[in-house]
Amino acid sequence: MNEFELIERYFALPAKALYTPAVLTGIGDDCAVLQPAPDAQLLVSSDMLLEGRHFFAGTDAYRLGHKALATNLSDLAACGAAPLGFTLSLALPQVDEAWLEPFSQGMLALAAHSECPLVGGDTTRGPLTIHITVFGQIPQGQALLRNGAQVGHDIYVSGSIGEARAGLHLLQAQWSCANTPLRTHLIRRLEAPTPRLSLGKHLRGVASSAMDLSDGLCGDLGHLLKASKVGARVDGAALLQTAPRLWQSSELSSWCESKKIAFAMAGGDDYELLFTAHPSFRSYLTELGQELGMGITRIGEVLAEQGLHVLDSQGAAVALNGASFDHFAAD
Amino acid sequence: MNEFELIERYFALPAKALYTPAVLTGIGDDCAVLQPAPDAQLLVSSDMLLEGRHFFAGTDAYRLGHKALATNLSDLAACGAAPLGFTLSLALPQVDEAWLEPFSQGMLALAAHSECPLVGGDTTRGPLTIHITVFGQIPQGQALLRNGAQVGHDIYVSGSIGEARAGLHLLQAQWSCANTPLRTHLIRRLEAPTPRLSLGKHLRGVASSAMDLSDGLCGDLGHLLKASKVGARVDGAALLQTAPRLWQSSELSSWCESKKIAFAMAGGDDYELLFTAHPSFRSYLTELGQELGMGITRIGEVLAEQGLHVLDSQGAAVALNGASFDHFAAD
Repeated sequence: MNEFELIERYFALPAKALYTPAVLTGIGDDCAVLQPAPDAQLLVSSDMLLEGRHFFAGTDAYRLGHKALATNLSDLAACGAAPLGFTLSLALPQVDEAWLEPFSQGMLALAAHSECPLVGGDTTRGPLTIHITVFGQIPQGQALLRNGAQVGHDIYVSGSIGEARAGLHLLQAQWSCANTPLRTHLIRRLEAPTPRLSLGKHLRGVASSAMDLSDGLCGDLGHLLKASKVGARVDGAALLQTAPRLWQSSELSSWCESKKIAFAMAGGDDYELLFTAHPSFRSYLTELGQELGMGITRIGEVLAEQGLHVLDSQGAAVALNGASFDHFAAD
Repeated sequence: MNEFELIERYFALPAKALYTPAVLTGIGDDCAVLQPAPDAQLLVSSDMLLEGRHFFAGTDAYRLGHKALATNLSDLAACGAAPLGFTLSLALPQVDEAWLEPFSQGMLALAAHSECPLVGGDTTRGPLTIHITVFGQIPQGQALLRNGAQVGHDIYVSGSIGEARAGLHLLQAQWSCANTPLRTHLIRRLEAPTPRLSLGKHLRGVASSAMDLSDGLCGDLGHLLKASKVGARVDGAALLQTAPRLWQSSELSSWCESKKIAFAMAGGDDYELLFTAHPSFRSYLTELGQELGMGITRIGEVLAEQGLHVLDSQGAAVALNGASFDHFAAD
């Protein structure tokens, strides 16, 4: 099977079935041609994932296909954008249909669910590398950015913070977990994150700043605070309440509170949204969480004084040793 | 120097100086935010380049930076689009400033010249891999596609066909070339192609179909004919006239005409435009070539009968053994 047949069978043909009316020309020409909405601004995000660095060799191909797209859609979600489409470039060590079939299915199932059609890309031989660029759109001036956090605004996270990191520890056999449903849940949180696209759209006009959590709350919130030129206080007990199953598990329940908080603050791969909002939106956000069926938890407050202060339930400072993830430092 | 400092010094800071008014948010947020023109359609193209497969280890870094962007801009040119911006993802085996500095300069010099700002991307450690996604815009319905060639239309190429392949043979030491200026020119044609963005814009409303020449005229024209459901006759003598210096060089002048034609038909990496147009545009295209200072050569005609017929100056068929390049077959 040559390159063209390969692309055709696993990507181009199934992708064509998912084209939205915005796809004027899809896979097969020099460029894809897309029609944004008349008043739209364009949002773009790119990610390159390498085997052995961003995912383990042997990762379930269906989940890998899902996650590669999910992490990019998470960037669109963080900006409040609606997906327009994506391109996929794949380097593959060989044409392995037993891998390609579930990989493409995992990716295209999420593409269908997110109304984000695959519109172009390429394939080549090389070390397994997955590169995705996503495009989205948003009405003029409504994009949620990192630099809008204001003093006195509340800080929120969606979902359960720290679960993906726990899943990673389980996969790396640094932990065991006797509770099989919990173990399955945690690994699923690592391997199959859900991009919070609906939440992002509902935060237009509500959140003063937003970003997605990919490298851990400590580093990511640090980026947001730096971009907004503010500081913050994080209420560690509120943060732990986002993932009660995790902390009450028999393996972790003996940890002291500050250890749990430090773990959650440094947990990467959550792909939840971190955002700030004026206190007048508290009841709206409570109702929104119920409507969307997801946790939306207020975890702190934006302060004028620069710096990030994480407190436990006694008001004592929690020591954080986790910086953000650096792809060059982390060898 | 960590990942963030690296991106900052060689890409983010110099890139910011090149932002156009269309860049509302550039590098540093979850997404770049761009403002297309009110009536615009969006064009997208992606390419992944791996060391050892798409370029030689040790390739001059400045030219590599230029070429990686040039080949993507060539796809925009082929569609008649104006650049909006691009993202760059780099996998690097190590942080080598002696390489990064000229690489970024070569890329950003072309970005400045093409008004195509760098707006996002990422860097990671891994085998040297360069991934670019370019975005462009075009007024509604004016994109040049592969599927519009009509029977009786003329077939054109820009520039000099076959020179990049000759440059490749020189670099691979399969040939020698005593004529130093010619040798320099041919290698430059391989390593530093010029995306034909001005030509592409002038072909809006003129060309009935268009694409760029990356894998060789034989295969690329084959794709265009297939997409348009037509055939073609190519006049090999006209094709050779696009690169007179090459064929008259002392090393190649002894080749028979059909060998030269077959070589030019299978030459990849030209990054010239291939397009078709109604015969009523002949004088316009002659004048356009003079205005833009580039060759625009009529090399054949679109036929109803499917298939590609390449003839020499005696009207005899030229045998073509060159198919298009397949990244999986070509090991």
